[in-house]
Amino acid sequence: MKEFDLINRFFKNRGHQRKDVIMGIGDDAAITKIPNKQCLAVTTDTLVNGVHFLPETPAEAVAYKAVAVNLSDLAAMGAEPAWISLSLSLPSTDAVWLDDFTKGLFELSQYYSVQLIGGDTVRGTLAVTITAQGFVPIDSALTRSGAKPGDWIYVTGTLGDAGAGLEILKGELQASSEDAEYLIHRHQYPSPRVLAGTALRRSASACIDISDGLLADIQHILDNSECGALINVEKLPISDPLNRVVSTDQAIDLALAAGDDYELIFTVAEDYKSKVETAFTSFNVNATCIGQITGATGKIDLRCNDKPFAHSGQRGYQHFDAS
Amino acid sequence: MKEFDLINRFFKNRGHQRKDVIMGIGDDAAITKIPNKQCLAVTTDTLVNGVHFLPETPAEAVAYKAVAVNLSDLAAMGAEPAWISLSLSLPSTDAVWLDDFTKGLFELSQYYSVQLIGGDTVRGTLAVTITAQGFVPIDSALTRSGAKPGDWIYVTGTLGDAGAGLEILKGELQASSEDAEYLIHRHQYPSPRVLAGTALRRSASACIDISDGLLADIQHILDNSECGALINVEKLPISDPLNRVVSTDQAIDLALAAGDDYELIFTVAEDYKSKVETAFTSFNVNATCIGQITGATGKIDLRCNDKPFAHSGQRGYQHFDAS
Repeated sequence: MKEFDLINRFFKNRGHQRKDVIMGIGDDAAITKIPNKQCLAVTTDTLVNGVHFLPETPAEAVAYKAVAVNLSDLAAMGAEPAWISLSLSLPSTDAVWLDDFTKGLFELSQYYSVQLIGGDTVRGTLAVTITAQGFVPIDSALTRSGAKPGDWIYVTGTLGDAGAGLEILKGELQASSEDAEYLIHRHQYPSPRVLAGTALRRSASACIDISDGLLADIQHILDNSECGALINVEKLPISDPLNRVVSTDQAIDLALAAGDDYELIFTVAEDYKSKVETAFTSFNVNATCIGQITGATGKIDLRCNDKPFAHSGQRGYQHFDAS
Repeated sequence: MKEFDLINRFFKNRGHQRKDVIMGIGDDAAITKIPNKQCLAVTTDTLVNGVHFLPETPAEAVAYKAVAVNLSDLAAMGAEPAWISLSLSLPSTDAVWLDDFTKGLFELSQYYSVQLIGGDTVRGTLAVTITAQGFVPIDSALTRSGAKPGDWIYVTGTLGDAGAGLEILKGELQASSEDAEYLIHRHQYPSPRVLAGTALRRSASACIDISDGLLADIQHILDNSECGALINVEKLPISDPLNRVVSTDQAIDLALAAGDDYELIFTVAEDYKSKVETAFTSFNVNATCIGQITGATGKIDLRCNDKPFAHSGQRGYQHFDAS
């Protein structure tokens, strides 16, 4: 199949079509409009076969996750997603695989009213690069640098599920078929917290999404905000399935360090605490207060029921740990 | 080297810094502003080692070309480039290679006042994906669909040089060291016709850049504009070095089909012909009239000194010719 045929068959005029896209797939570049008084948020993430997903991962999950991790980055900025561009590197053109891939791609983008506006298809090892763009009102973007001592630390959803799902897929962890299905789904089909991100625009002092693990990612907030964190590990939100398949200590380890959760960590000043909690009850995402920002610059103080807690696990996924 | 160290050392706060970038590298997404009454032009291109460039290509040239082909797409829309995002897939972190790579990346982006605003670095086979963004005034984008019978067909610069440069690199063509240097440089360091593209905004009826070859690329204009083309091959602009290293017939073949030139093909209505020619004399890019749009939908009529010309070569590079 030639590149143009492939694009026409699988990508052109498919999925959600937006009015702010003046020209989508089919010219040298897409042409789009952004609303008045809005800034543009832009993020790029690449998933490589065998590095970011297991080789036997269904094509639908590969596409879904590639979109999700990018929308999660926009969510962490408080941005509303609008458009994605896709670069797809494929060893060969496999129509069945591409049908599955586009199913995952358009399912998630349709849900968030996001349009695929362009991209590239190349021959190479399987890898998916997505650039996602969205809008955020001027001066409203959530950053990593606004946390202050005394702010409360929250996370959305539950943590550690994705890490357990990966261990199950690799045969390193046993679970009932129901729990396995739940945890694997959390690993393969993460939910970007788009609504939570936009709701936090005027309430959170800092925000980041959890891709590399809670400890690794909160560290970015601490480094950029020049502060520390006290985390009460007994408050970490753990799902029932995760509680059933691992011990409490293992669940805490996964929650702290496994990554791939794509939940948001955010900080909230005391004055905004009740506003945020009220807002979160109005849509279907839980937010759990897990600790507080401190003045101990760069330091994370882990406590379990007010006693020091020793975490021996590795701190987050490192993309280039050897060289 | 860890990913964050790699980004901090080689990419963060380097190259041109723009005032419209509110937040560049270092958060979950970049935040930028676009000017009033401007649309956004967005394009993505990926270069894969061994597919889009020879394995021994200098890192500087890989980066330069990856930026150039994207800026060329923006130029073909009449857009002024502003920001690029980079996804870099590397088998390992090689500081010498990365130094050379960033030299090429920042040289070209600095020249066009373009800022690197984000991206991703992953472990994998060597591949470079760039998403480039730029501005074009509302209703001013150059498309493939506006050509009309009678419009004149122009190309910028000279054609076929890049194809000859590739043949020299592959040992398939001999040339003096001076000519070889020129032609290889044209292959490895293409010049995106940014100024030409913006100058054509209100004058050209259609425009595309030549990546796959003149015949393959003009065909997109013909298909989208529902018209045909008469091309006078004796008028194709051929550089002196190319004329010295190949026969006239070979030069025409390269000009028609080799691709990788990243010159612009554009069409101009009779009423705008003198305006365009005057404009092009004011900056240092040649534009040559090579033929005229016809009513023979989808058909290309090649003539040499008014006689039919048979072109036996392949029509442009096909990215997925086998499956």
